[in-house]
Amino acid sequence: MVQAYILIQTEVGRAAHVASEISGIEGVTQADDVTGPYDVVVRAQADDVDALGRLVVARIQRLDGIARTLTCPIVNI
Amino acid sequence: MVQAYILIQTEVGRAAHVASEISGIEGVTQADDVTGPYDVVVRAQADDVDALGRLVVARIQRLDGIARTLTCPIVNI
Amino acid sequence: MVQAYILIQTEVGRAAHVASEISGIEGVTQADDVTGPYDVVVRAQADDVDALGRLVVARIQRLDGIARTLTCPIVNI
Amino acid sequence: MVQAYILIQTEVGRAAHVASEISGIEGVTQADDVTGPYDVVVRAQADDVDALGRLVVARIQRLDGIARTLTCPIVNI
Amino acid sequence: MVQAYILIQTEVGRAAHVASEISGIEGVTQADDVTGPYDVVVRAQADDVDALGRLVVARIQRLDGIARTLTCPIVNI
Amino acid sequence: MVQAYILIQTEVGRAAHVASEISGIEGVTQADDVTGPYDVVVRAQADDVDALGRLVVARIQRLDGIARTLTCPIVNI
Amino acid sequence: MVQAYILIQTEVGRAAHVASEISGIEGVTQADDVTGPYDVVVRAQADDVDALGRLVVARIQRLDGIARTLTCPIVNI
Amino acid sequence: MVQAYILIQTEVGRAAHVASEISGIEGVTQADDVTGPYDVVVRAQADDVDALGRLVVARIQRLDGIARTLTCPIVNI
Repeated sequence: MVQAYILIQTEVGRAAHVASEISGIEGVTQADDVTGPYDVVVRAQADDVDALGRLVVARIQRLDGIARTLTCPIVNI
Repeated sequence: MVQAYILIQTEVGRAAHVASEISGIEGVTQADDVTGPYDVVVRAQADDVDALGRLVVARIQRLDGIARTLTCPIVNI
Repeated sequence: MVQAYILIQTEVGRAAHVASEISGIEGVTQADDVTGPYDVVVRAQADDVDALGRLVVARIQRLDGIARTLTCPIVNI
Repeated sequence: MVQAYILIQTEVGRAAHVASEISGIEGVTQADDVTGPYDVVVRAQADDVDALGRLVVARIQRLDGIARTLTCPIVNI
Repeated sequence: MVQAYILIQTEVGRAAHVASEISGIEGVTQADDVTGPYDVVVRAQADDVDALGRLVVARIQRLDGIARTLTCPIVNI
Repeated sequence: MVQAYILIQTEVGRAAHVASEISGIEGVTQADDVTGPYDVVVRAQADDVDALGRLVVARIQRLDGIARTLTCPIVNI
Repeated sequence: MVQAYILIQTEVGRAAHVASEISGIEGVTQADDVTGPYDVVVRAQADDVDALGRLVVARIQRLDGIARTLTCPIVNI
Repeated sequence: MVQAYILIQTEVGRAAHVASEISGIEGVTQADDVTGPYDVVVRAQADDVDALGRLVVARIQRLDGIARTLTCPIVNI
């Protein structure tokens, strides 16, 4: 199991819409609107790094209003 | 009451137009064109962080020519 | 009540040490080591934006090994 | 006369100290602590771009606790 | 007289076209294609900071293929 | 002979498509999908810096789905 | 098995020294000096994301002259 | 022959000192203090990319007060 934070920049005027849609995606455990350089912070989990990549590219990035995502896998050092 | 600086990047060729429109929005107390990584610097106030978020997303980001906004709430440390 | 994500860059070689110390600070509800442009992602809460600012500057930034913090308040738009 | 916003990153734990010291410098008209990628936002004025550069390098950057400054001159387009 | 470097990001596939067009604008004294985070580096001069701002917004940003410009005024400290 | 890493940001939802197309371009020796601030990391070689610039602008940036490229020439210091 | 590119910024004047030391670390398969926003690009492999995180923090970041690392795991989308 | 712009960030309070020292280095053809995200913009030339890398690491980065350099080779596309 791999967990990650995904920091999302939305197109202008779309932040609220994006967070509520993402929270319904399987594997997503948190989705919050924030202010600052990012617009939405998501926490998600997947079976491995490849599945996490597919979750981001095939599910989250397909939503309308996403400008850019930055995936930060959680590590146990 | 919450105050914030909002650093704005405009689409190319749109800076002057954006600053003058933003200065007419309720809650905006300063709006200046600048050179550098940002194109317009705005100072605004709202009742709380949520109202500030709505001011940015629902009022400022709805204007034509806004590419990206970065909200920096003022804090009294 | 204000909640925020705090994205932290640590000095090289210090990430693991920082996350475990931060998780003990009052108001901190999550603290994870991550890979990518940030080293630790923290979720915290405080009474208002000013108290959040003090939590970051007076508690988190005082820890050894913190290079830079980026506070992203959660907003309900 | 040239006016500018100066976006300042401070060393960790030093934000409050820096803003109050800067507000006493001649030519500085606003100095606020903020959260986000910058820690202090300053508004200042000088006779011309060169004097503005000297104000930043010789007065503001000399203060203890300044990590990096970003000067954004105000323009009337 | 104010001089400045203007660091330009072009839309993908447009760098060569942009540099040659910019070099014909009055006030531009150098325009080079570069690799790295920027695609074109321009050196230009104008009567004052405001005229420099107008040169960038009204002349350079109007060209097809410009994605983002970053103006860095030269200062004599 | 000049070698370089080319760090690529793709448009949302396009990363997988881009990496496989780039790997077929002459001069490209590696092309991998990655997570983080970049989406694809490419290693390529060309006769000199100018040929490398042309490879990036005329071949890689012409592909559908490329948002931004950052060329980092390898140096033997 | 997880593979990753690690983009490294070194302290000024240290790039050459760092690349040659890193190339001797177990799990590192490429280490090149580059120009641009990063100074060294490394390719490495580890058993899983956690082992990769430990390789970066416990081995690479311990070397003298490393200022900042950015790990980009390779994904098969 | 390879030419490049080198964008330099100096330690706080050191910009003026750095530009004048750099202008004396062989191969450097321009060195200007600027405001914005960079503090000094340099134009330099060398025999090839490797010699350019050595000029930056062995000559420019050795000067006191340099925090970070970003080399942007000029290309003829």
